[in-house]
Amino acid sequence: MSSTATHSDSALKFERHPIHTDVVIVGAGPCGLFQVFELGLLGLKAHVVDSLKAPGGQCVELYPDKPIYDIPAVPVCTGQELTDRLLEQIKPFGAGLHLGQEVTQVERQENGRFRVVTSAATVFDAGAVVVAGGVGSFQPRRLDVPGAAELEGKYLHYRVKDPRAFADQDVLILGGGDSALDWALTLVDHARSVVLVHRRPEFRGAPASVAKLYALRDEHRADVLIGTVKECTHVDGVLKSVSVQGGDSVVRRVDADQALAFFGLSPKLGPIAEWGLDLQKKQINVDTEKFQTNIPGIYAVGDVNTYPGKKKLILSGFHEGALAAFAIKEYLEPGKKVHLQYTTTSPLMHKRLGVADEPAADERKVAGSR
Amino acid sequence: MSSTATHSDSALKFERHPIHTDVVIVGAGPCGLFQVFELGLLGLKAHVVDSLKAPGGQCVELYPDKPIYDIPAVPVCTGQELTDRLLEQIKPFGAGLHLGQEVTQVERQENGRFRVVTSAATVFDAGAVVVAGGVGSFQPRRLDVPGAAELEGKYLHYRVKDPRAFADQDVLILGGGDSALDWALTLVDHARSVVLVHRRPEFRGAPASVAKLYALRDEHRADVLIGTVKECTHVDGVLKSVSVQGGDSVVRRVDADQALAFFGLSPKLGPIAEWGLDLQKKQINVDTEKFQTNIPGIYAVGDVNTYPGKKKLILSGFHEGALAAFAIKEYLEPGKKVHLQYTTTSPLMHKRLGVADEPAADERKVAGSR
Repeated sequence: MSSTATHSDSALKFERHPIHTDVVIVGAGPCGLFQVFELGLLGLKAHVVDSLKAPGGQCVELYPDKPIYDIPAVPVCTGQELTDRLLEQIKPFGAGLHLGQEVTQVERQENGRFRVVTSAATVFDAGAVVVAGGVGSFQPRRLDVPGAAELEGKYLHYRVKDPRAFADQDVLILGGGDSALDWALTLVDHARSVVLVHRRPEFRGAPASVAKLYALRDEHRADVLIGTVKECTHVDGVLKSVSVQGGDSVVRRVDADQALAFFGLSPKLGPIAEWGLDLQKKQINVDTEKFQTNIPGIYAVGDVNTYPGKKKLILSGFHEGALAAFAIKEYLEPGKKVHLQYTTTSPLMHKRLGVADEPAADERKVAGSR
Repeated sequence: MSSTATHSDSALKFERHPIHTDVVIVGAGPCGLFQVFELGLLGLKAHVVDSLKAPGGQCVELYPDKPIYDIPAVPVCTGQELTDRLLEQIKPFGAGLHLGQEVTQVERQENGRFRVVTSAATVFDAGAVVVAGGVGSFQPRRLDVPGAAELEGKYLHYRVKDPRAFADQDVLILGGGDSALDWALTLVDHARSVVLVHRRPEFRGAPASVAKLYALRDEHRADVLIGTVKECTHVDGVLKSVSVQGGDSVVRRVDADQALAFFGLSPKLGPIAEWGLDLQKKQINVDTEKFQTNIPGIYAVGDVNTYPGKKKLILSGFHEGALAAFAIKEYLEPGKKVHLQYTTTSPLMHKRLGVADEPAADERKVAGSR
């Protein structure tokens, strides 16, 4: 499987030659991956786009090491194992996997096909689109205090593009996980000052990093402040200071040129919400026959969709993907009769799966012996 | 898991004390087995009935050793392996497995619960019924020639209840598989004469059995006739002879007191067709929210049901079973709110699955680190 991992922020300005494909799948979680399989069985090629840098979606992002018990015929597996098994299963179909980028634009062209563009300027010319977006793309959690929103991007950041941008600046780092700790330890060598603010004395990051940070504080090379950010003060759009209320209720104002917040990721439906799809509480309405949205040619499977009786089970997304695949086949090749063929017995399925047929066909249809 | 294997023909005349349960599942194929799991997660107890003598349904009956490729996250497994994995998965729920018997009767009682009776006189008092009957129960293939139907049960048999019934009779055995061969070799010691009729010289049964049969022929203790049965002749309802047309087109009439036909099994919807369910081409109409039939409290999942878009995939039956389980929970405990709980994180699910909870709850909801 080809993997084209690019960063969503390094959007190229020139437009690449579009990748021509049957289907673009938005989301590389379990349902997006299994969608490749079901399409592949019907002879359809797919490309998968995901905002995360690894396949697996929520399963890998939220519980890579925790056991899942309700995948049929898999009594127990972790989120990572489930993903690995699905990647193994879809190998025969050689789908393109485009990670670390979001689909930002989906437009129907005059010929009825879709032009799909990602944040990394990957462009697809696709016959159909399947949204397997789960709970949405994972976005950094924002600092939600007065003054924060106005500073975003210039003085308040949720990721570091280039550490050199912080050279000789007074830098405030917010958060208590590994991202916050690692950047504090890195920027200490570039910035004029580094103050890490965390809401409680316990850190979630590696204890060794915490020890290093406190050692730097003892050397007066960094500072650690325990408390909750209350406000960002700016003058003419330029960050001046951040107010932090400690456990003693006293508010301390810390001067800063730049602030970096690492509060983890939270899922957002993101650009999908702008495509004109019929949404119901951030979920996409689909029918239960084709799992098609209100836009013909755009389908939705897994946690992102809704219909009467919908349960957010991985299993349900798998089933939805199977039925969507048959509907897409019919949509792309109208009038061509598609018969359900079983992977156990069909030579065509075996060919598509890349497995050898049995040397002699077994005549026995049922356990018969006439 | 308790297994009560009884023979469908040995129906007892007294009525047993009914087994009280939440749900009776008709069919122990993959979907019937997984139905136990989904009900179990919701705290509901189930008993499973199947006409076959082993669990696994079509998967085990038709392709125990053949690979299946389209179970999600199981790149390849045989029908037997799939069954074994599902049996392993449902172990925590201790469902009763009642094999070798068909459900013959389903009646709603005055209190709204169902009285379910099997061909082995097992009686259940169940809150709900799930039909996971696949293509139906496997019935012996009938001999379809003039005169055959009238003789069935008295002079024409599709299974042997008691070999002593054939003592000192002229017996004709039809078929070329192991059942036909084995009974020919057995009855040779009881019957007055044994003639085996098979439509072609090649046998499907064990070569050693074929060799034994021909050796008996050489000793004039049995005979083998290659040809196709054309007619059964009877006088006053008593079998007189069977006409067999050979490869030479010549019809030979063979006198016989009894005929035994072993043409293998073929699936029939069976008694389910008599329950008053809304059928469409031998399949049960269900909705796609609850997978309920036209009779409230009776559900249908897997190959036996139909709805717009239905595909006969094992995967689809698994999904249908999951949604049916939620509907059944609501049906049996109306008004009680059922929240979807994940097997990965819910202590209640862990308790029902019999797995230990993690010592400390992980606070992290999303990969956050605030």
